[in-house]
Amino acid sequence: MKYDNFAFDIEHRDPKSRARVGKLKTPHGTIETPNYIFCGTKGAIKNLSAHQMREAKTDIILGNTYHLMIQPGADLVQKMGGLHKFNGWNGPMMTDSGGFQIFSMGHGSIADEIKGRNQKRDKSLLKITEEGAKFKSYWSGETLNLTPEASIDIQRKLGADLIYQFDECTAYHVDREYTASSMERSHRWGDRSLAEFERGHDGSQALYGIVQGGVYEDLRATSCAYTKERPFFGTAIGGCLGGSEEEMDEVVSWCAPQIHPDRPVHLLGIGRIRDVFTFVRQGIDTFDCVSPTRIARHGWALQKGNADERMNLRNARYKDDPLPLDPESDMPYSRDYSRAYLHHLLKVGELLATQIIAQHNVAVINRLMREVRVAIREGTLDDLEKEWLGR
Amino acid sequence: MKYDNFAFDIEHRDPKSRARVGKLKTPHGTIETPNYIFCGTKGAIKNLSAHQMREAKTDIILGNTYHLMIQPGADLVQKMGGLHKFNGWNGPMMTDSGGFQIFSMGHGSIADEIKGRNQKRDKSLLKITEEGAKFKSYWSGETLNLTPEASIDIQRKLGADLIYQFDECTAYHVDREYTASSMERSHRWGDRSLAEFERGHDGSQALYGIVQGGVYEDLRATSCAYTKERPFFGTAIGGCLGGSEEEMDEVVSWCAPQIHPDRPVHLLGIGRIRDVFTFVRQGIDTFDCVSPTRIARHGWALQKGNADERMNLRNARYKDDPLPLDPESDMPYSRDYSRAYLHHLLKVGELLATQIIAQHNVAVINRLMREVRVAIREGTLDDLEKEWLGR
Repeated sequence: MKYDNFAFDIEHRDPKSRARVGKLKTPHGTIETPNYIFCGTKGAIKNLSAHQMREAKTDIILGNTYHLMIQPGADLVQKMGGLHKFNGWNGPMMTDSGGFQIFSMGHGSIADEIKGRNQKRDKSLLKITEEGAKFKSYWSGETLNLTPEASIDIQRKLGADLIYQFDECTAYHVDREYTASSMERSHRWGDRSLAEFERGHDGSQALYGIVQGGVYEDLRATSCAYTKERPFFGTAIGGCLGGSEEEMDEVVSWCAPQIHPDRPVHLLGIGRIRDVFTFVRQGIDTFDCVSPTRIARHGWALQKGNADERMNLRNARYKDDPLPLDPESDMPYSRDYSRAYLHHLLKVGELLATQIIAQHNVAVINRLMREVRVAIREGTLDDLEKEWLGR
Repeated sequence: MKYDNFAFDIEHRDPKSRARVGKLKTPHGTIETPNYIFCGTKGAIKNLSAHQMREAKTDIILGNTYHLMIQPGADLVQKMGGLHKFNGWNGPMMTDSGGFQIFSMGHGSIADEIKGRNQKRDKSLLKITEEGAKFKSYWSGETLNLTPEASIDIQRKLGADLIYQFDECTAYHVDREYTASSMERSHRWGDRSLAEFERGHDGSQALYGIVQGGVYEDLRATSCAYTKERPFFGTAIGGCLGGSEEEMDEVVSWCAPQIHPDRPVHLLGIGRIRDVFTFVRQGIDTFDCVSPTRIARHGWALQKGNADERMNLRNARYKDDPLPLDPESDMPYSRDYSRAYLHHLLKVGELLATQIIAQHNVAVINRLMREVRVAIREGTLDDLEKEWLGR
């Protein structure tokens, strides 16, 4: 497989950890890594426009195949010129394969935010077979099939730069036996994804494989070997990583030395500030997580130097706080509105608060990633972690 | 009363109507008239920041005394440096007196949007006396009193440039007898407002009187004479203007020749595009209405040249419309997102749509007002009305 319009160059390696600084080139621009990919679930970052994402110095965003295939549909997005043109984001973009949402909805065990569904909805996954997944559209109620071939076809129509093989994301409660057979099937789906990708490959997209295997070291080893041997452009670490920070760190530490060393590595769905520090040391190049914009809706503003990572602006202590969200920021939303004003807006239910805090949170994460890249180059990651988390 | 920091200069009069072009000077800047004052009910324009209002070329905004006295309270706003500092709007600003919301809530007869309340709430007006109005806070449930003195005191603490006498806004269904006695009381409240205003006058604010009298020509004449004789800076036409366009036009036509000819004239709460054309011809200098941002929440985007004034972007005809909201606009939100994308966002409930359409609508209204001013100067108002309303 040729990925001529793509490249991943590792420019610096931290001698004390697996942390590295690189450049990831796509047809829509080159980003520096480590970097953070913001989730535009249904074709939009929650409450933020492409203009506001650029103003917050964002490099790359993500769209969800599952939501977009349901509404407005891949054919419509293609007709409108692709997802870049549709939502106004002209920089690098990623789409997932749709598998995660289908299976998390089926298992009904992961945050509603990620699933993008109402809380009382019935499980929508009808059946998983060798062919793929059959599920009920939350929109129209019709039965839909998602297969490796369909997922690649949809992602081709959406037109993101970085796309994913179809896989099953196993839940926390499943046993070793199910995890193993699911992983094997995901590998077969990976091969079918590769075949379908190659069939239509025109150089505009690059495919990531996904390491599954749950919390089982030997299965992770098998899956690392699988992705390493296949002509994927990048590697993602997916599936269940465990139930605690320590367990997640351990699972990723099994994978880190066994995956392809020269490919960009994405960690699926993990992205608190502390996670960024933990996992860049494991060699993770890109993160994605809904949390920066989701917590904004609850009135939580990210803050450097705060051990809790964030201020809860609904708290009465902010009701007469004249300080802005970040006195050091050069971004209008972080600099020009007081915490007291945002506290008021949250109390009276003005959605403007969400917009302001969401953009601030995105800007904080982008600043975090810029500082992390500098710190890796300069060997000062430990100091930077103390600065950010006050510990 | 001296209004040294304020001025209203009429620079041009239309020979065919009462339309005029002027300059209204305030301590926070000078605006050209006719102009449109956007409603920041609870201290924020719905879904739009002060930055976005400026980007949409807005000249002046408004805050509501009633809502702000309840949350966060005038003392807190004053402590935070006044409403300009609090919400980040550093241009000219108006506040109303609070009377409109109290009485409309009491009568329970005007749009929920203006009242800013939930639909099932009990009537909150407890009693109107000579002293003022007693009502129940929708926030805390406590009994609050709003008097002319309290209204002026609150508006002083909020610190807007243009403020209002306390009045009762009568509802459509009230009879002549009630309208007359209410008007007389509003006049006495006007005198008390003036006295309290003068007591604390430091030159930073200017007071408007309000013409009441409902749909009764002789009462309107009495109220015009009242406001004309008092040392108000500006005149507002308020109260019930009738139930149809024709009736509103007639009521305003009674007032127009009888109010003070040299003072700025504000028409309270009226502001569709067709209303602007109708009432600038009656000599109205400023308008305010919640509609540009309210209709955005329903997916309605204002459009020049549309007899309905607006597109309903929820309509299926827009689902694959690649055009932006306004191909001629230089504003990113009007120019860079397709109707198809906004249709999609509305369908899936992404609030980003509201933000984009709201800013577009504000920009359209500001463009309307700019073009109206030019047309009055050039004597081409009839042509401009045809261009805008296609009729």
